[in-house]
Amino acid sequence: MGIAMVLANTYHLHLRPGITVIEKMGGLHKFMAWDRAILTDSGGYQIFSLASLRKVSDEGVIFRSHIDGSQHLLTPELIIQFQEALGADIIMTLDECPAYDDSFEKVKRAMDRTHQWAERCQRAQKRNDQALYAIVQGGLFPQLRHQSAEYLTSLGFPGYAIGGLSVGEPEKVTRSITEETVALLPEDKPRYLMGVGSPEDIIEGTARGIDIFDSALPTRVARNGAFFTHLGRVNIGNAAYRQMEQPIDPDCDCYTCHTFSAAYLHHLFGCQELLGYRLATIHNLSFITNLMRKVRSAILNGTFRSFKSNFLANYKPTDEQTRLNQKQKQLKSRNLSE
Amino acid sequence: MGIAMVLANTYHLHLRPGITVIEKMGGLHKFMAWDRAILTDSGGYQIFSLASLRKVSDEGVIFRSHIDGSQHLLTPELIIQFQEALGADIIMTLDECPAYDDSFEKVKRAMDRTHQWAERCQRAQKRNDQALYAIVQGGLFPQLRHQSAEYLTSLGFPGYAIGGLSVGEPEKVTRSITEETVALLPEDKPRYLMGVGSPEDIIEGTARGIDIFDSALPTRVARNGAFFTHLGRVNIGNAAYRQMEQPIDPDCDCYTCHTFSAAYLHHLFGCQELLGYRLATIHNLSFITNLMRKVRSAILNGTFRSFKSNFLANYKPTDEQTRLNQKQKQLKSRNLSE
Repeated sequence: MGIAMVLANTYHLHLRPGITVIEKMGGLHKFMAWDRAILTDSGGYQIFSLASLRKVSDEGVIFRSHIDGSQHLLTPELIIQFQEALGADIIMTLDECPAYDDSFEKVKRAMDRTHQWAERCQRAQKRNDQALYAIVQGGLFPQLRHQSAEYLTSLGFPGYAIGGLSVGEPEKVTRSITEETVALLPEDKPRYLMGVGSPEDIIEGTARGIDIFDSALPTRVARNGAFFTHLGRVNIGNAAYRQMEQPIDPDCDCYTCHTFSAAYLHHLFGCQELLGYRLATIHNLSFITNLMRKVRSAILNGTFRSFKSNFLANYKPTDEQTRLNQKQKQLKSRNLSE
Repeated sequence: MGIAMVLANTYHLHLRPGITVIEKMGGLHKFMAWDRAILTDSGGYQIFSLASLRKVSDEGVIFRSHIDGSQHLLTPELIIQFQEALGADIIMTLDECPAYDDSFEKVKRAMDRTHQWAERCQRAQKRNDQALYAIVQGGLFPQLRHQSAEYLTSLGFPGYAIGGLSVGEPEKVTRSITEETVALLPEDKPRYLMGVGSPEDIIEGTARGIDIFDSALPTRVARNGAFFTHLGRVNIGNAAYRQMEQPIDPDCDCYTCHTFSAAYLHHLFGCQELLGYRLATIHNLSFITNLMRKVRSAILNGTFRSFKSNFLANYKPTDEQTRLNQKQKQLKSRNLSE
């Protein structure tokens, strides 16, 4: 479907199957049989959202695995060593992610530490064929975002990510912080908004200057039966699809829509047949890939503004309350079981 | 991978999504987007193994759905009507399946009823583009198997199935009953051994004259991490695979073995990642398909006997006790939850 890059997570791969396993298997590209680009996230976000019993010090972070409770240490130097072993094309600095409702003081301390860690990551890098991106922190405080962007750009990275957003705060705040932060990052370097992935957020982020997004949302909601369409998300479990001969999205040219009726997908999900999850995933990834393709060509043609307003006029986003509830539920279930 | 026919089940499709849904969607080939051959089983076996509160009379069988407890009636006439609506290429008569430890009297009654139902199925057929196969019953009693084969062949069907085997009886008995029964069926009609699907049983069945097999075993054990190899079944969860760079079966040319290491599959299963189940399914279906291809060419070349002994000399079958335990467990879990 034309996807150019996938994301893998150093935290998850460190716990399972272990970095040395992947290294022995010839690196992540070979292990997954994926010959296009890979970005590995450092796992900062996962350490601060999934793992338990964290002890953060300037040295690094000690935490317990969310899977088996085993104890692990990560430092900026180790995270670079791990990502060099994995061999992704883009790698990330280790950051400390505060909660969105943490105090100014707490967020500032996390930011300062993130800056020190970014410098140490930069110094620890041995390979010269991987682009190391820094992660701007600073929570929901514009003043800290300014400081963070200024500090990290002074170190000179090949790309910059905005971290610590989309973690439960209201959407309006995500957007204003994104807007303020992106303006402080160099235009000639990729600007990457971490953890953002709904169609409407991608459009809004792009409008503010973001170049790269990542999110598990398109595939996670797919496995729950939510299909993206140009009118918004629809759920295949809806009785209206029981006898619908058309594809779930008649405008879509993906394998799923090209091949199967909405009724068939409804049936597969009703039976919890694994094929259903795969077909939904194919559809949602195709939808996002096609959306990005259209976004890019609209930017090149100078028609992005009208493309955006057309898209958003049709696309009914998930309402804010549902969105926040889902996010809380997801964070909670991750803490409990993942 | 060159599979020429898939099996679908009238009992399951009647309960979900319902025969009329599939009929409205243009039939089963279109619904599944499968343009090769389809065989629909009548569901006799499922009614007698999955459903509860059965009332069997000469008229037909009343049972409760294993999914929601709803009450349903199936008769020979209805089962033909359903299978004509589904539109498979091969369809099956409705049979009554006794348990393998039922008394002679009980098994005989079930057989007599199966015969009457077969005749009614034959009379009920309206479409002339579907091959209706009859199902020989008679349990583990050679005398009844003889009677059943004789009676059904006298009615003249385009194909004959052997039902009521592989339902928990010892393997030796399965084989001797198969051998006795197949000898009574016309050689110029396809002879189909229902519910049999392990590599060793396929080879043994073929040696006795069987032409068609069906079984959920290759895909079911795949989802539990069991991969067929020419040395026998191996389980991907075994620690030996954790760092194995080679494919799980170096002799296999399927997509899974061609593309991924055993270590990657081990990792996917360890994480319960859905891709693992798919890759295992692809491998096991390829293994069976390749096996059948080799079997056919060995028969044509007149080398089947040596092919068989070579294969069985290498292939370590699942031992009898494990096999019976698995069967019991499977039947039990089906009765409880499926």
